[in-house]
Amino acid sequence: MMSGVRKKILFVVMDGLGDRGCASLGGKTPLEHTQTPNLDKFVRLGNSGIMDIISPGVPPGSDTAHLSLLGYDPYKVYRGRGPFEAAGIGLISRPGDVAFRCNFSTVNDKMEVTDRRAGRIKEPETTELIKALSGMVIDGVEILVKEGTEHRAALILRGEGLDPNVTDTDPHDLGNVLTSVGRTKNAAFTASIVNKFVRTSYERMKEHPVNILRRKKGLPEANILLPRGAGSFPDILPFPQKNMMKAACVAGVGMIKGICGVCGLDVIDVPKECTGGVDTDMIIKADVALKALNKYDFVLMNVKAADVAGHDGKPEQKCSVISRLDDMAGRLMEMMDGNVVVAFTADHCTPVSVGDHSGDPVPVTVYTEGMVSDNATKFSESGCAEGRIGRIRGCDLLQICIDLANRSEKFGA
Amino acid sequence: MMSGVRKKILFVVMDGLGDRGCASLGGKTPLEHTQTPNLDKFVRLGNSGIMDIISPGVPPGSDTAHLSLLGYDPYKVYRGRGPFEAAGIGLISRPGDVAFRCNFSTVNDKMEVTDRRAGRIKEPETTELIKALSGMVIDGVEILVKEGTEHRAALILRGEGLDPNVTDTDPHDLGNVLTSVGRTKNAAFTASIVNKFVRTSYERMKEHPVNILRRKKGLPEANILLPRGAGSFPDILPFPQKNMMKAACVAGVGMIKGICGVCGLDVIDVPKECTGGVDTDMIIKADVALKALNKYDFVLMNVKAADVAGHDGKPEQKCSVISRLDDMAGRLMEMMDGNVVVAFTADHCTPVSVGDHSGDPVPVTVYTEGMVSDNATKFSESGCAEGRIGRIRGCDLLQICIDLANRSEKFGA
Repeated sequence: MMSGVRKKILFVVMDGLGDRGCASLGGKTPLEHTQTPNLDKFVRLGNSGIMDIISPGVPPGSDTAHLSLLGYDPYKVYRGRGPFEAAGIGLISRPGDVAFRCNFSTVNDKMEVTDRRAGRIKEPETTELIKALSGMVIDGVEILVKEGTEHRAALILRGEGLDPNVTDTDPHDLGNVLTSVGRTKNAAFTASIVNKFVRTSYERMKEHPVNILRRKKGLPEANILLPRGAGSFPDILPFPQKNMMKAACVAGVGMIKGICGVCGLDVIDVPKECTGGVDTDMIIKADVALKALNKYDFVLMNVKAADVAGHDGKPEQKCSVISRLDDMAGRLMEMMDGNVVVAFTADHCTPVSVGDHSGDPVPVTVYTEGMVSDNATKFSESGCAEGRIGRIRGCDLLQICIDLANRSEKFGA
Repeated sequence: MMSGVRKKILFVVMDGLGDRGCASLGGKTPLEHTQTPNLDKFVRLGNSGIMDIISPGVPPGSDTAHLSLLGYDPYKVYRGRGPFEAAGIGLISRPGDVAFRCNFSTVNDKMEVTDRRAGRIKEPETTELIKALSGMVIDGVEILVKEGTEHRAALILRGEGLDPNVTDTDPHDLGNVLTSVGRTKNAAFTASIVNKFVRTSYERMKEHPVNILRRKKGLPEANILLPRGAGSFPDILPFPQKNMMKAACVAGVGMIKGICGVCGLDVIDVPKECTGGVDTDMIIKADVALKALNKYDFVLMNVKAADVAGHDGKPEQKCSVISRLDDMAGRLMEMMDGNVVVAFTADHCTPVSVGDHSGDPVPVTVYTEGMVSDNATKFSESGCAEGRIGRIRGCDLLQICIDLANRSEKFGA
């Protein structure tokens, strides 16, 4: 172990922040177009670069991106989205489980989906419906279900011989409920459990009091649960053991909490002002993260707002979010002491011209006291590229920060 | 799949373009020394960088370089040059075959090579000679042969239990014909077939009417066919399936056509003005490539001239080729619409001071509408290094362009 003061590490992940040139902003990106005096100050004091979260040109999902930022190679450990969604609503899977996200949906008696979200049904009705599905065992496989926000839920299968290589039952549109099939021979058993579960969910919910009442009110009934996005628990060493650091995440979005939870980080509850939407209160979130640094060695803070503006294709809204992110950076600068290594970056680009994640590299700036100087002066896609970090991979950032925090282990002697 | 406009992709591969500082050019490279206003405009509008086609300091062959540019890792898929040479003259190998390139050579009755190229014999004499070798089967192995340009030919062995790990029979100089041996135990059978084929080629050609006539004229007889460069078919998913793009190549040189053909690209015939030599008509070739973009999603265009000047060690000639390449870039700029992602690069450096391929990184510039700006202004080895692409690997370029073309698939969710 290195000598020198052992510092703490803060990752500020500004979700979907990176972009491309926008015609409506005179060819600039939202970051280039917006005044960001506080982020720029971190750039001038720190080191900057650009980062391929997965590898050049590959658009990351939120799940693979955060695995990479937490130092795991997603090509080696990623086994599907299900366990992260499930963990995001507090349903924790174990090695060997297969997990799914689900929708409460509406089907007619021909098993045709007529509303994928059952009229956006929500708690407490979903809580009641879930009770009807609890405690089930199908062919020796234990069934765990839990309701999420609105029409969402999660499902875990627990037992011997399960395999996540099964197809979805959700048609992702109106139409017939799909029969899950195994993509490999080994997965046929798991697919059969899924199909039996879907059928049973229909039988147990179609005449449930909640649905009788909804029928009377003319609302779509939530009479089936449709699993999709099968995944198994990633084969990883939990973050705290792997990196010898007490670690936590501060996030508003369920799936981000789920990813961090699965990786062994403590998930810190955020006040209701931190919505995960464009209206989220970033200053409050910054204060929660700063407070967490008293107790934890590593804190990952995710702010979702820029991603939402990118998905919605709104450059001006993205600029306004960036202004508020810069205020948040100012708050961090004001309150943080010199014994923190802070990294400002994104989990992926969500260009407004694309409306979805792209594989463009994201900007990254790392700061702590005692950095080597570089030439970068502006926190943006082009500005950070002038810094001495150069072009790195997402899964390299953590180790760079661990080293700057004087916490790295020598390889060799 | 991303939303946003799906664009087309054009790779302009300026063969052997990169160089080192030349004393006769005041220490500058040919690219630095030559005015290139059109290429520079692409640099100012696009993003630039330098690229290790294989890995830092490794000089690529034309075959491994193009595999890498087409997105394949040559360390994983390359199994020798033979299949590409064979495909380049229209002899298509299959998985399991072993392919060679060959020379028609002249040997005396002691089996000593007295002319490796049989006086640069060519069609139609080689066509006649090849007929004498057709339809042969040796120890159950089918023999396929075809004449190429001048003294060149290709050979394919087709049958069970073949292995490409065999040595050449061509001494690569004057001297005894070599006996092919297996580099591994498994390859001994293949080597024995090669040796029997070489002996049979001598027996069938030495008194062939073509050679009786050449003897009368005092010309070296083409009385033996000497295989070298054994290779097996690369184990790859064809480019169009792998990348979900209709793809074509526009090239004058047989081997480049062969590589692209083996990778599943359609090979577009170029007019006879596109010679593959220093006198090639680049404007006509650019027009062929632009026309191909109407029909194909991806077009690779190879222009050989700079490589020839590099191999010949002529810096001034290389400068003059570069001027014409820049005119070609001007033509592309004039005729191309905003829905193309274009990459200007080289497959390797061929420094005039070396006269062969080197492992120096090549310059690369990528342009489409909506790029993030960078600081590079000049298309050259030094100029491109100032851009925000940084330093990438050859096999990363395709994915970067696929992403900019809004055709990439998200990894994760």
